[in-house]
Amino acid sequence: MAEVVHMIDSEVFLAFSTYATIVVLKMMLMSLMTSYFRLTKQVFSNLEDTALVKTTEDRKKLVRVDPDVERVRRCHLNDLENIVPFVVIGLLYALTGPDLSMALLHFRVFVGSRFIHTVVYMMALPQPTRALAFGVGLFITFSMAYRVLTTALFL
Amino acid sequence: MAEVVHMIDSEVFLAFSTYATIVVLKMMLMSLMTSYFRLTKQVFSNLEDTALVKTTEDRKKLVRVDPDVERVRRCHLNDLENIVPFVVIGLLYALTGPDLSMALLHFRVFVGSRFIHTVVYMMALPQPTRALAFGVGLFITFSMAYRVLTTALFL
Amino acid sequence: MAEVVHMIDSEVFLAFSTYATIVVLKMMLMSLMTSYFRLTKQVFSNLEDTALVKTTEDRKKLVRVDPDVERVRRCHLNDLENIVPFVVIGLLYALTGPDLSMALLHFRVFVGSRFIHTVVYMMALPQPTRALAFGVGLFITFSMAYRVLTTALFL
Repeated sequence: MAEVVHMIDSEVFLAFSTYATIVVLKMMLMSLMTSYFRLTKQVFSNLEDTALVKTTEDRKKLVRVDPDVERVRRCHLNDLENIVPFVVIGLLYALTGPDLSMALLHFRVFVGSRFIHTVVYMMALPQPTRALAFGVGLFITFSMAYRVLTTALFL
Repeated sequence: MAEVVHMIDSEVFLAFSTYATIVVLKMMLMSLMTSYFRLTKQVFSNLEDTALVKTTEDRKKLVRVDPDVERVRRCHLNDLENIVPFVVIGLLYALTGPDLSMALLHFRVFVGSRFIHTVVYMMALPQPTRALAFGVGLFITFSMAYRVLTTALFL
Repeated sequence: MAEVVHMIDSEVFLAFSTYATIVVLKMMLMSLMTSYFRLTKQVFSNLEDTALVKTTEDRKKLVRVDPDVERVRRCHLNDLENIVPFVVIGLLYALTGPDLSMALLHFRVFVGSRFIHTVVYMMALPQPTRALAFGVGLFITFSMAYRVLTTALFL
């Protein structure tokens, strides 16, 4: 990390900013998808939330668990568990001054793998498609972590 | 992001550091609130945790689900899902060199919206108060992401 | 944060990069541990995932909840709730230019406390061991937040 200061102005850092923002926005869309399913399927976690829809049913019955909503929730949590490590390790990786082409390869493959993961999860496509998408993202993050640790190790 | 290096020393970055720290501390308080409810209501997720309280009941019965504890848990998870994107995109936004007044507006409104969200959630106040607090925070993060992508786009 | 630009090249920042990467990698291992338990115990959240194992049982019965898997999940979520604040506040703390020895003390104790937390949680060792490991990590993050706020406060 000897020339780190110049790195923040670099194309690598711009690329990181772009892909990190895109993949975090994708993660935020899971919140909106959860809200959409909750409102259209009338499935809530809190009694006070049932006031958001018109219903003739007993409102207490709308506080329930629904398999589709739970699927979106699991997909969202999986995003959190994988995108947070990408952002943290990717930021440090960008500061180690990697080749632009290598950095772009890492960022693009990771972001692509998470979009594929979401589509596969939401449509319940057959395994091992989702396991592969998950594994590719994990591998990319490990690869960046390897460069950070070999470049910046200071224990 | 041409003048990014100078930005780290800037008042915008100091403001980001301040508000990011405050809102992350607020998120951490949810852990303590969960512990407080678990101990006072004697509700645990793990059998070994029941040793933390004195009880005459069968300890296995203390491993149970409680609506108040679940409410704190949901509020905490909602914080994670929204504060993590704010911190990531807010950091990149601060590096794009926005006007100090615009940056302060973004940071203050976001942090305010999350404090309101927590109070409204914990007190189960009527909707759409919580939905609005959530939406305002989301909008702020989208607004910062827009600036990051229009300033730093590098695909 | 007056001399912040030089800080990014500093040994403190290298140390932060190292310890943040290590503790985030530890968190990612929880995903792999969950997968391992799901596959060996044949416990799944999604019907399509049951295709990943050979079984003579009715596949629908494999979509179930298992106490060991839930324990790993809780441990993973606890990591997210605590390691994310450490990474955010630790990054800002590293930029305030603390003494190297003080910074190393913070980073090492935090990372150590999270490794201990995971071992204690997975082995269900008696309390208050896990509560202590959790508390030490929390205290370290609060201590770094205190320095960030006293050094960089800009409201």
